[in-house]
This record gives sequence, C-alpha cells and structure tokens, in this order.
Amino acid sequence: MSAARPLSPGAVVGILGGGQLGRMLAMAAARLGLKAHIYSPDPQSCALEVVRRHTLADYGDEAALDGFAREVDVITYEFENVPADAAMFLASRRPVMPDPSVLATTQDRLIEKDFIAGLGVATAPFVRVDSPAELSRAIETIGRPAVLKTRRFGYDGKGQVTIRDGTALEAAWRAIGGRPAILESFVDFEREISVVAARERGGRVECFDVTENEHRDHILKVSRVPALVSPAIADAAQAIAETIARAFDYVGVLAVEMFVPRAGETAVMVNEVAPRVHNSGHWTLDGASVSQFEQHIRAIAGWPLAKPVRRGRIEMINLIGEEVEEYARWLAEPHAKVHLYGKAHVRPGRKMGHVTCVSLDPAGHI
Amino acid sequence: MSAARPLSPGAVVGILGGGQLGRMLAMAAARLGLKAHIYSPDPQSCALEVVRRHTLADYGDEAALDGFAREVDVITYEFENVPADAAMFLASRRPVMPDPSVLATTQDRLIEKDFIAGLGVATAPFVRVDSPAELSRAIETIGRPAVLKTRRFGYDGKGQVTIRDGTALEAAWRAIGGRPAILESFVDFEREISVVAARERGGRVECFDVTENEHRDHILKVSRVPALVSPAIADAAQAIAETIARAFDYVGVLAVEMFVPRAGETAVMVNEVAPRVHNSGHWTLDGASVSQFEQHIRAIAGWPLAKPVRRGRIEMINLIGEEVEEYARWLAEPHAKVHLYGKAHVRPGRKMGHVTCVSLDPAGHI
Repeated sequence: MSAARPLSPGAVVGILGGGQLGRMLAMAAARLGLKAHIYSPDPQSCALEVVRRHTLADYGDEAALDGFAREVDVITYEFENVPADAAMFLASRRPVMPDPSVLATTQDRLIEKDFIAGLGVATAPFVRVDSPAELSRAIETIGRPAVLKTRRFGYDGKGQVTIRDGTALEAAWRAIGGRPAILESFVDFEREISVVAARERGGRVECFDVTENEHRDHILKVSRVPALVSPAIADAAQAIAETIARAFDYVGVLAVEMFVPRAGETAVMVNEVAPRVHNSGHWTLDGASVSQFEQHIRAIAGWPLAKPVRRGRIEMINLIGEEVEEYARWLAEPHAKVHLYGKAHVRPGRKMGHVTCVSLDPAGHI
Repeated sequence: MSAARPLSPGAVVGILGGGQLGRMLAMAAARLGLKAHIYSPDPQSCALEVVRRHTLADYGDEAALDGFAREVDVITYEFENVPADAAMFLASRRPVMPDPSVLATTQDRLIEKDFIAGLGVATAPFVRVDSPAELSRAIETIGRPAVLKTRRFGYDGKGQVTIRDGTALEAAWRAIGGRPAILESFVDFEREISVVAARERGGRVECFDVTENEHRDHILKVSRVPALVSPAIADAAQAIAETIARAFDYVGVLAVEMFVPRAGETAVMVNEVAPRVHNSGHWTLDGASVSQFEQHIRAIAGWPLAKPVRRGRIEMINLIGEEVEEYARWLAEPHAKVHLYGKAHVRPGRKMGHVTCVSLDPAGHI
C-alpha cells in the first residue's frame, strides 16, 4: 500500500521505536493535530510519555503488528534497525514511509556503500571481509590505518575497531565478533559534517544547513551550524544528500554523515546514511523555522515541506550519561534551550537530553 | 502544602483541565523531562492525546481527586473556573500553583475588580448589580453605553450584554440569566492589549512583550506583537502585570488584559486577569526564546525563569470553527507555523488551532 492520500488532521501516525527520536516525532505530529501511536518492546520507552496510544510488543509479534497497523493511518520509524520482516509485514497493511526497501540497504554497510558508490558519490575505499583470511588480503589493499566494521547493527561506535600499525588482525576480527564486515580506509578528515534532508511525496527536497559534528567516544557530542566549510563544499554536501534521497525515492527525513578530507584531497566522502531523523538535526527544533521532526511528519503525511530558515549561529550539545545532572545549570543559561528525554535510568554513554544555544548575532559569537 | 522543593526531571505535573492550554502545557513539561498527568471530566479532551497518564472524572469526585493527587508532584490548572472546593481539596495534599486563593479572586468579577482597584490600578468604572432595581440605579451612576457582566463563569463574551441607548434594562437583566453581576462603563478604547507575565517561586517576574489583541464576536482572533503603543504605555502595562503578580504572591504565568483609552484619557485600564497561560501568549511558542508554557512549567517546578527575547514582529491568528479547514493553505505559507489542537469536533466559535507568522525583518513587514 503506498498510493496514500494526504492525511487529515486527527489521523494517526504509527511510529516504530520508543526512544527520544520517536518522542520528538510524536510531539511534532501532535503540534500539527495528528495523533501518534508508539510501537515499542520496552515499557520504559521515553516516547510513551507523550502519547495516549501505544503497543508494547516485540517486532516479531505478528498479531501485535497487525493490531498496530489497524490503529494507524501511516507508519514510520525512528531507528534503522527495525527488522525488515516487520517492516514488510506492516507495508502490506498500511503505507510505511520511508519504504522498507531503504532499510534493506542501510542496514547493511556493504550494500549501503555499494549503493552510494553506484551513485558516483565518494566514500572511503572499502573491501568486503567475511573471514580472517579475507581481512589479511583486505588490509593489503586498503593499508593501515583502517577500520573494520560489522556490516549490520552498528551504531555509536559499536561493532567497529580501528586497525593501526601494531594491531593484530586476528584480535580485530574477534573484537567485532567474527561477523561479516567491511574494511574501510581510515579517512584523515579535517572535519565531520552532516546534511539532514527531507523529501516530500511529490519529490521536492529541502535540505537543512550543513552541520559540523564533534564526536566523543564515537558518540555525537556537539553539532555546530553553519559548518565551517566553503560554500562549494556545503553545496556539494547538500547535493549528495539530495542525490541519495532521490535515488531511494525517499519520503521523509534522512541524514547523511560525511567527511571533509584535509586540504589537497578531493571530494566530500559519505560515511553513512541514517534513514530517519538524526541527532545532528536536533538544532533545528530551536534554530530553524521548521524542525527536522516536523519536516518528517509533513512528508509522511503527504503535506508540503516547509522551507527551513536558520535563525542564527547554533550549537547543539548532547547531555550524555550523568551530564544530564547539569540540567539546572543549563536552565539558568540565557541562550540555552533545554531538552530532556525523560529516560528512566541514567547509563554511561546514554543520550539523556540536549541543549541548543542560538546566537542571533550575525557575527556568530554565542 | 506549599514549601515544595524544586522538582527533579521525571517528576509528574498534574494539570486540571484537558483543553488546548493543558495540551501545550503538557508538551512544554515533556520537553523539560517532566511527566504530565491530565485531570479532565471529558474523555474527548484534546490534551489527553499528548500524555500517558490521565484521570477522567468530575471536579467534584473526591476519590478521583485524591487518587490524582497521589500520582503527581505538583498541581496546576489550565482554566480559571476550576471549582474552588476541588482546588482546596487538592491543596491539602499537594502543592497547587498558582495558589487556589487566586482562583477565589479571579472567578468573581466583582472581587477581581475590587482587588485591582485596591492596588491603585485603573479599571473601567464599575458597580455591583444584584437585582433589576440595582441595575436601574447603576445605569444612572455609570451612564450608557455600559456592559452588564455576570460575576462568575463568563468567557469569550458569554454572560455579558452591552446596554446601549435603546436597550431595555429588564431584557438585559434576563439576557445574563438574572444572576449577580457588575455593570461596567463601556470603555471607548483605542486598542486592546495584554501582558503575559511569569513569576517564579523566588519572586522574580519576567514579562513578555506587550501584545495587541483583536477580537471578533468577543473571541480573540489576532494577536500582534509588539503592540503599537508608546514605550511609556508598554512600560505601564508591564508594571501593572508585575504589580498584580506580586500582590497575588503568584507562581506561574498570568495574563492581564487591558484597554488603552483614546488619546486625551489617562491611564491604561485593566479589563481582566487570567490566572493561567493565555491565548494572547501563544505567539511565544514560535516568536520568543522561551514560551509562556515553558515559563509556567519552570515556575511551578521551582526552576528559574528564562529571560524572554522576542524573535521579530509577530502575528498570531486563531483558527476558529471551520477556519481550521484552512490548515492546508497555512502549511504552504512560508512564514507560518501551524498549530492544530486535535479537537474531535468542529463547532462554531471553538478554538481549533492557531497560526504564528514571524517576520525576522526588523522593519516588521510580514
């Protein structure tokens, strides 16, 4: 089912996943007069706090999936590791956006990289690795340093290991669980950037401004916008996001993470694609005329996208683990907008909230 | 119970009332990591859609009120006609903010006007009217035109009638149901303005910029900010709101509606006080660095207020009754932010949503 008509106010958006992204999607839907229904296996999901309707069940529970589909008018997801079977099952009952075929591509780093390379878009050199023997051959092709990554279910640095001069290949292979992988050349990048783009059913694409991202322990810590890149690089980065969105016949918001190589090297390289709203787009809630969450809801509702206008120079800071305890200090900060996700337990590395600082000063000093 | 400590993230805010104001308060609480629990007698309340927890019961149901109090950490309300008994009952169990004594004053136009006059703040001349005979005497004092208003339960023009040259007093008395009333002099105002102010537990007050309001059929249709008034009038209006907030020892957001008399007359006159977030403050969601809803939640949580900074020239337009059908046109409007309340049924005169247009152009052309 995909030739869906635009939703009317009061329609129900089904969201697979109950984390902070689902929570912020549900709130964006509510602002537009749509109802949200969260599907999650975890009764402590923070998204459940902001909706009246939810289904608590595993993604493999077909009776629950069927009941969920009956309750909603369109289905979307807040994370890319939704089991493909569940997405296909739902798609036979209700429109699922973006299309489940996108998940099949982005859930596998090898298929994703092949797809991107097939669009003529640069990525770090990569080689498929299915065994220790293949890893040995791959390292001869790629050279050191390199990064060995499992093909599936990696996020926030999980499922990957850097192979440096002294790293034993057997140990690296074991470190990622001996699973099907790819070996990528280590990119000596000048900065990491991302583009969050939205595509509506009719094909129109709107990109948010290019964002610069700083990671700590493989977890996004700070996003700054505008990124300190040349207009040519910014244009190229947005063109890449648009190319990928069109190639997927995408409906909704996606994020493309990219490396800007050091001067002397050539093109912007795609690191990975997230087929969903993205942490590096959280600044849009306070720093743009429309948020990534609203754009996603508009797109899947069959409504027109808004044209995003940035409000100033912006810094988005994640509150990770115990950093959430700093909320009181942030509440007193004049330029800060505080977002707390209401998660029941603090855990190291867990994203507990974020803060956005917007400077209206065109000179950009916060 | 009132010597409450500041709330911690994860605490539960109880909200009496399930309309759009409760809905937007609940969403503001969620953004700050607080949970919201709605108490409403109406299962179709639009605020229920954005919370996990609710109590469906009448305001006179003490068992339900008691159960509600046990589930929440602080209690507030989204409308001023909460029965005083219910508010007092709850206040014996949990902190209720603003204090129920504020309701006792603002629920009765006579007590409210006496209170305001007692602060040395101007109002339209008014006289108590409890019978047709008193109405005859009052009209001799006040003159025509005048407005006869019930003391209690009036809103959006309900419970009031204008007495002009030809109006029969008996008919006017019957038109308001023959209930205890006040007769007010009809103010020939140049414009209607309001100030939305927040006061935190520690006493600090923050006012939003003065807003100019245009009514249609006694219902707010458009708010514009900044109001086209002199700096002296704007300062006076904010000072009045601050005086009232302090006199109430208020915690939370209140709105003061005022008349700016035509040139030649003297002071700004208070029309009425709303002890809650207010329709004329909806522009703050998109047009200020902090919204009235967040300020209210910060105040009742015992957290510091933010200092509001306006983002440009702003127009807020209510979508009343069938005007909600214009949502599609508004979604396509580049400068418009669309808010739909998700109400189940369209009725004439019912507030179904609003739209905010923000112009960043300092010249103020939208």
